[in-house]
Amino acid sequence: MTFLNALHCRNKGRPPVWIMRQAGRYLPEYRELRSNYSFHEMTHRPELAAEVTLMPIQRYEFDAAIIFSDILVIPEALGFPFEFVDGVGPILGEPVTPQDVPHLKEQNSLQFVAEAIKLVKSKLSVPLLGFCGAPFTIASYMIEGGSSRDLKKTKQWLFQDPKSFHELLEILTESIIRHLKLQVEAGVDAVQLFESWAIHLGLSQLREFSFPYLQRIFREVDVPTLVFGRGTAAYVDELAELGPNGISVDWSCDISQIRKKIPQNVALQGNLDPHILYASPDTIRQECRKILASMENDPGFIFNLGHGILPDIPTESVKTLVETIKEFSCVKSSSPSLNN
Amino acid sequence: MTFLNALHCRNKGRPPVWIMRQAGRYLPEYRELRSNYSFHEMTHRPELAAEVTLMPIQRYEFDAAIIFSDILVIPEALGFPFEFVDGVGPILGEPVTPQDVPHLKEQNSLQFVAEAIKLVKSKLSVPLLGFCGAPFTIASYMIEGGSSRDLKKTKQWLFQDPKSFHELLEILTESIIRHLKLQVEAGVDAVQLFESWAIHLGLSQLREFSFPYLQRIFREVDVPTLVFGRGTAAYVDELAELGPNGISVDWSCDISQIRKKIPQNVALQGNLDPHILYASPDTIRQECRKILASMENDPGFIFNLGHGILPDIPTESVKTLVETIKEFSCVKSSSPSLNN
Repeated sequence: MTFLNALHCRNKGRPPVWIMRQAGRYLPEYRELRSNYSFHEMTHRPELAAEVTLMPIQRYEFDAAIIFSDILVIPEALGFPFEFVDGVGPILGEPVTPQDVPHLKEQNSLQFVAEAIKLVKSKLSVPLLGFCGAPFTIASYMIEGGSSRDLKKTKQWLFQDPKSFHELLEILTESIIRHLKLQVEAGVDAVQLFESWAIHLGLSQLREFSFPYLQRIFREVDVPTLVFGRGTAAYVDELAELGPNGISVDWSCDISQIRKKIPQNVALQGNLDPHILYASPDTIRQECRKILASMENDPGFIFNLGHGILPDIPTESVKTLVETIKEFSCVKSSSPSLNN
Repeated sequence: MTFLNALHCRNKGRPPVWIMRQAGRYLPEYRELRSNYSFHEMTHRPELAAEVTLMPIQRYEFDAAIIFSDILVIPEALGFPFEFVDGVGPILGEPVTPQDVPHLKEQNSLQFVAEAIKLVKSKLSVPLLGFCGAPFTIASYMIEGGSSRDLKKTKQWLFQDPKSFHELLEILTESIIRHLKLQVEAGVDAVQLFESWAIHLGLSQLREFSFPYLQRIFREVDVPTLVFGRGTAAYVDELAELGPNGISVDWSCDISQIRKKIPQNVALQGNLDPHILYASPDTIRQECRKILASMENDPGFIFNLGHGILPDIPTESVKTLVETIKEFSCVKSSSPSLNN
């Protein structure tokens, strides 16, 4: 299991590869299914979620699958359902306010995610990742009522009333831990936490409103953990100290330099700019190989994009990417001298 | 001159303070003037631009002024005029395409900026900053036709046709150097380059499409140079090697840790999260002091925000910020033992 070996920093072969949002809109088979069902149905009906999860594995033979779900199932379970509007993103019916915090309580079961995981596991030959949004990122979605350019409302709340903000994070953390444990029980082999909106928050505030909660989650989960956020390269050393098994970095950094800043027992995942997949096959190969070469022989390296794949990427580009990673091993084993 | 001393890394007193977009919409006197004139008039009529430049100096006694202008005067001079739409941002009438590149030529004079600088200098007792957008950032605006979430069109061009992209950067670099020299001749004491959209580009691409052009500009300009971009903390060491006198960092990092990564003769500017100015005076003071304390006695530190001030920030918040920085010196000189 290349992927789990790399996550445990003991991979001896070529690096494993999977990509964020690999089960998504860029796949024609996804769009076809989506034309018959809403996004809500696709995430909430286990047989559909399982089918979508397996699509990219069948097409590309990625080294890991990730359960098809959404980070906003957590607010939904707390009584804040979302709707996914094409071209806009998720919209929460009613943004959360400080007055709501004392009344927040899990109302809906997330058992459908567990069912989907069990279905996938029965058919899968590579490891399966579960995932959750991290507390600060989920809080931000709930406060902004959807996507946001700058998290203005979130930051106003955080700075003006840090106490109730911490209370909200507290409730979300408990809910996230429960959901991750549910996924682990259902059979996921590892989990990834998405602190996607960390990039908007200052390091000083991350230390107060994100890191302690991440740390608690890493401690509570019994499978290997990965954490992703944009902009994490600037403080990757502090992130490593929180105890994840691996860190996923974006394309704003040289991943081989990041390696020098974190312990050898922490895996590193990344970091191709997703926009490179708009380029020609030659450019894609060249940019993938730059990363591969810079991380060559690193036993804890997992190839991924620096963010989720974009919906209008040609499927051929992904094929080129996967082939480039998988070929790298052949070159290595057949003529190792070329790589030195 | 505290500001210039700090930019030369030889400041012995409290750090100087100015803030990006200090001459802007958060000021009631700006909004009043703006109610009588368009944004275009305010940037293009020297007496108006000069008046706006001086507003924040009169109100807050910042340690540096920055000429009121816009980074999009460069595309305008090249025949790509922009319109500033309230609530949307700048809109370019016609985005630039690879076919336009061979025909790009300076058509309009930027002499009005020089006139404004001369007017300001005759009335100003602190140093005056000139500025320009950096080539990649200006190219992005011209290609996207305005602001953009992810620079998709820019990156598609860059990856698919790097040759014409370099040609565009070449033309812009020449135009930027001319405009900076014009500002220097008119009397600015230093200049800041805004590579604002660096955050969207991978480090691998920055090395090819941004850094060499920045380096050339730094070499050509005869006054001290500062460079700003979001996300620069991740590669601040490489930026320092390009030869700016100072680097402005955003709030995603601990500025005192950044100091350790760059030579002592490179000034550091930053890095309060602009959203903190929505908070209470106590929080503003506390967050400013964290930064001040961490950079205490650094002869090359300039206090600033990590990005431009937002248009709806209360003027009182800025007063608190400036007072906090200026008080810091009093505490230092009257009872130095408190600061150890």
